[in-house]
Amino acid sequence: MEVKLASSYGFCFGVKRAIDIAQKYENSATMGPLIHNKNEIDRLQNDYKVGLYRDLNEVKPNDTVIIRTHGIPKQDLKDLRAKDAKVINATCPFVTTPQQIVKKMSQEGYSILIFGDSEHPEVKGVKSYGEDLEDVHVILEKSELDNLNFKHDKIATVAQTTRKKEIYLDIVNSLILKNKEVRVFNTICDATFENQDAARDLSKEVDVMIIIGGKNSSNTKQLHTISLENCSDSYLIENETELDSSWFDNKKLCGITAGASTPDWIIQQVVDKIKKY
Amino acid sequence: MEVKLASSYGFCFGVKRAIDIAQKYENSATMGPLIHNKNEIDRLQNDYKVGLYRDLNEVKPNDTVIIRTHGIPKQDLKDLRAKDAKVINATCPFVTTPQQIVKKMSQEGYSILIFGDSEHPEVKGVKSYGEDLEDVHVILEKSELDNLNFKHDKIATVAQTTRKKEIYLDIVNSLILKNKEVRVFNTICDATFENQDAARDLSKEVDVMIIIGGKNSSNTKQLHTISLENCSDSYLIENETELDSSWFDNKKLCGITAGASTPDWIIQQVVDKIKKY
Repeated sequence: MEVKLASSYGFCFGVKRAIDIAQKYENSATMGPLIHNKNEIDRLQNDYKVGLYRDLNEVKPNDTVIIRTHGIPKQDLKDLRAKDAKVINATCPFVTTPQQIVKKMSQEGYSILIFGDSEHPEVKGVKSYGEDLEDVHVILEKSELDNLNFKHDKIATVAQTTRKKEIYLDIVNSLILKNKEVRVFNTICDATFENQDAARDLSKEVDVMIIIGGKNSSNTKQLHTISLENCSDSYLIENETELDSSWFDNKKLCGITAGASTPDWIIQQVVDKIKKY
Repeated sequence: MEVKLASSYGFCFGVKRAIDIAQKYENSATMGPLIHNKNEIDRLQNDYKVGLYRDLNEVKPNDTVIIRTHGIPKQDLKDLRAKDAKVINATCPFVTTPQQIVKKMSQEGYSILIFGDSEHPEVKGVKSYGEDLEDVHVILEKSELDNLNFKHDKIATVAQTTRKKEIYLDIVNSLILKNKEVRVFNTICDATFENQDAARDLSKEVDVMIIIGGKNSSNTKQLHTISLENCSDSYLIENETELDSSWFDNKKLCGITAGASTPDWIIQQVVDKIKKY
């Protein structure tokens, strides 16, 4: 069976980078789970002795602490440094950038609007960099604008979500008409969209499509739905043990993609097995 | 006949301000026509001896020169100052602001986009304040974006037109998705829209509507069209001599509005005559 990988799949740039960093620091530990994938966390623990702090109080002086991909609040970072721990920052650049923008813009007297989910840890981290936390606002819908009280008529805005760009532009347009200046920083992370676009393209040219990822992962399920639109023989599996040889009968080309939490080594096991059919 | 004026009509804030300034400087002269209205220019000449330069070369040392409402290019202003003329700036603040924004933003390394008509004198003036004129772009349509070569991935943008805001927002949205940062300054002048909205409201409640302004003035004609939608007895006149008493037979309330180039004294003559019917 011939196999073709989607042009973009699996881990995003930020996650790959965080894992590379963790592998360089044996006997370190991460502040909260490094990424959202238990298999991979276990692998780092077993192969590289990378542990896990559940709480800041567990950190001792001279510990090597790795900051997780989605960042931590500013005060937590300060507290860590105050403990004389060695801090290694694996925060994704797509999270560090909005953190720094929020810091600088609120120092320069702008009200801040973050397009994102206020419950998400990366959003909490980004928000924490504002100088005046009462004037850093987080919304997911345009209708929420009505409830906000900006202190200034100069607004700086960042996006920290994989939600639709159209909603963000709609929010920005409303701000433009009501304020003297709106400063829009394009911090939209395209990773999710890239995997989806690539799955769409690939599913059009293959005979069978395999999507690897958690059965409960919403972004993996979305890849499955997209693939099914173009290729009725699309199957969602968590690993190579779930493969069924009959799926490949009379097929020539198999397309493969994977959800954002699927490590490359799981993908590789699937690819190797399919190639043997 | 009872008369009711639209809540907004005639000269905008910037034009009124320029005339106030000119009246304070007898024996001065304006650099180009102060505003777009010959009757008013003649009145300033007759009553206040405010003359008119057609060309920069006519200016002599110690002359008092008034800068017109829509501004002049930066170099012309420099040349004027070099002649040791006394320069009085009657440029509308809604034009000065974008001039200063373009200057500051291009000094800070932003590419500049002006939403406006490159042939309009106020747009030429605003554009002239860019540090790198090759990187100051003027467009009226979103489709023109494709032909532009921005030197930076940070764009600052101002609006200098009475065209639809929706087109501007559409242009801005396209910039946001393609650039690192877009800085949107709300420099939209609402004067034209305010007169139109007020004419729409007033024409709904009156029995007859009089629109005063040039028969060739596009904004006056637009006020007439809008009034006709709600009040079939809407008449466009240039001054009080064109009034016809039969228009007011069996009417109780007469609404009045005026184009952006119509001075108050012409409006007052019309009002006085109608009140006598």
